[in-house]
Amino acid sequence: MSYNFELLESVLEQRKQADPEKSYVAQLHSKGLNKVLEKVGEECTEAILAAKDHDLAPSNNSKSALIGEVADLWFHTLVMLSHLELSQCDIMQELERRFGQSGLDEKASRGEKG
Amino acid sequence: MSYNFELLESVLEQRKQADPEKSYVAQLHSKGLNKVLEKVGEECTEAILAAKDHDLAPSNNSKSALIGEVADLWFHTLVMLSHLELSQCDIMQELERRFGQSGLDEKASRGEKG
Amino acid sequence: MSYNFELLESVLEQRKQADPEKSYVAQLHSKGLNKVLEKVGEECTEAILAAKDHDLAPSNNSKSALIGEVADLWFHTLVMLSHLELSQCDIMQELERRFGQSGLDEKASRGEKG
Amino acid sequence: MSYNFELLESVLEQRKQADPEKSYVAQLHSKGLNKVLEKVGEECTEAILAAKDHDLAPSNNSKSALIGEVADLWFHTLVMLSHLELSQCDIMQELERRFGQSGLDEKASRGEKG
Repeated sequence: MSYNFELLESVLEQRKQADPEKSYVAQLHSKGLNKVLEKVGEECTEAILAAKDHDLAPSNNSKSALIGEVADLWFHTLVMLSHLELSQCDIMQELERRFGQSGLDEKASRGEKG
Repeated sequence: MSYNFELLESVLEQRKQADPEKSYVAQLHSKGLNKVLEKVGEECTEAILAAKDHDLAPSNNSKSALIGEVADLWFHTLVMLSHLELSQCDIMQELERRFGQSGLDEKASRGEKG
Repeated sequence: MSYNFELLESVLEQRKQADPEKSYVAQLHSKGLNKVLEKVGEECTEAILAAKDHDLAPSNNSKSALIGEVADLWFHTLVMLSHLELSQCDIMQELERRFGQSGLDEKASRGEKG
Repeated sequence: MSYNFELLESVLEQRKQADPEKSYVAQLHSKGLNKVLEKVGEECTEAILAAKDHDLAPSNNSKSALIGEVADLWFHTLVMLSHLELSQCDIMQELERRFGQSGLDEKASRGEKG
């Protein structure tokens, strides 16, 4: 599969400059960081609910719903990165950096976390 | 940049089968879906706080912290997909499907959302 | 101050039976638990953002905004309790039960938490 | 039922001044606002998961779990208010202010919300 965040990111950068009347992404940017972060939080809750529903009664519908919510979450996370002038490359490099480590080492390397 | 979620996903699948004593990922799976979803929610809140802090007083530290938190969020989202036998490909295909549409059309196509 | 959740709860119970066209509370109930929980998650994120903004640049506006968001969060939590046939009394009794204990004991008594 | 947030608030104010080694509340304050807000977000996610579990398979256990999580959420919201020198009275007055209005009016009065 050749599709990845690089391609989506380039589209998001174009839309950042677009007319807010015509582009949802431009609209989000024009409303400011809090609006973008509200959407990230909202989509996270919706993904969690969709995951519970799919776990409890799996169907094609519940699967599509979950896929749609996670896509929404990742999409809005990319908009957040774009809003703050960061790139998905920064995140991918960080994930690559942690990559060769064992899971528990990886957790330790992130410092104390819940 | 050649790194992407495919590679990370294959590592996550290996670790899913690992000894929970030795792998953080195996540990999460053994604790069940709620624990995985709690981590997704937790990392989302931490990413939001890191985004606010970076926005208000940008520094190398605030940037690294934000990158780390978004990496954590994506990482735990991938663990969630793996726990529910879904793949990042499902999400990427969904993002690709929405891709050629204009932003506002894309939003409309997801149905009514806040 | 005499106002408390008992009074609000009785209003919420009345509105639960109201016409969804005329009552926001009845509307939420008619949309089902997921919608109620989405609102709880949404208001939580908004309260967190308002807390950050008030902390960083306190003003009468930032204070009012925070008060409004916490009110929204508690309000929707009460709707959630009502939706699941629970009462704020159940929560208040639980808080009272934990009450005389020292903070660290209290935390321990809730079992292992992040 | 006579128990309410006033009483709990006065205990929280005492513990704010306590030794962080001995009081969970003092510990939270000493770690700063972000830690308090992380806990609010965490408890919100846990309350949402407990609500889903109770809805899908109601039992005495699922009910107790939900009560415990909502208590945790309200508790940490009160710590947040205390950290920012606000009082539960501010929130109760706001809820009282909205109170006599019809639900839909109440929603409109909060401005446009998702």
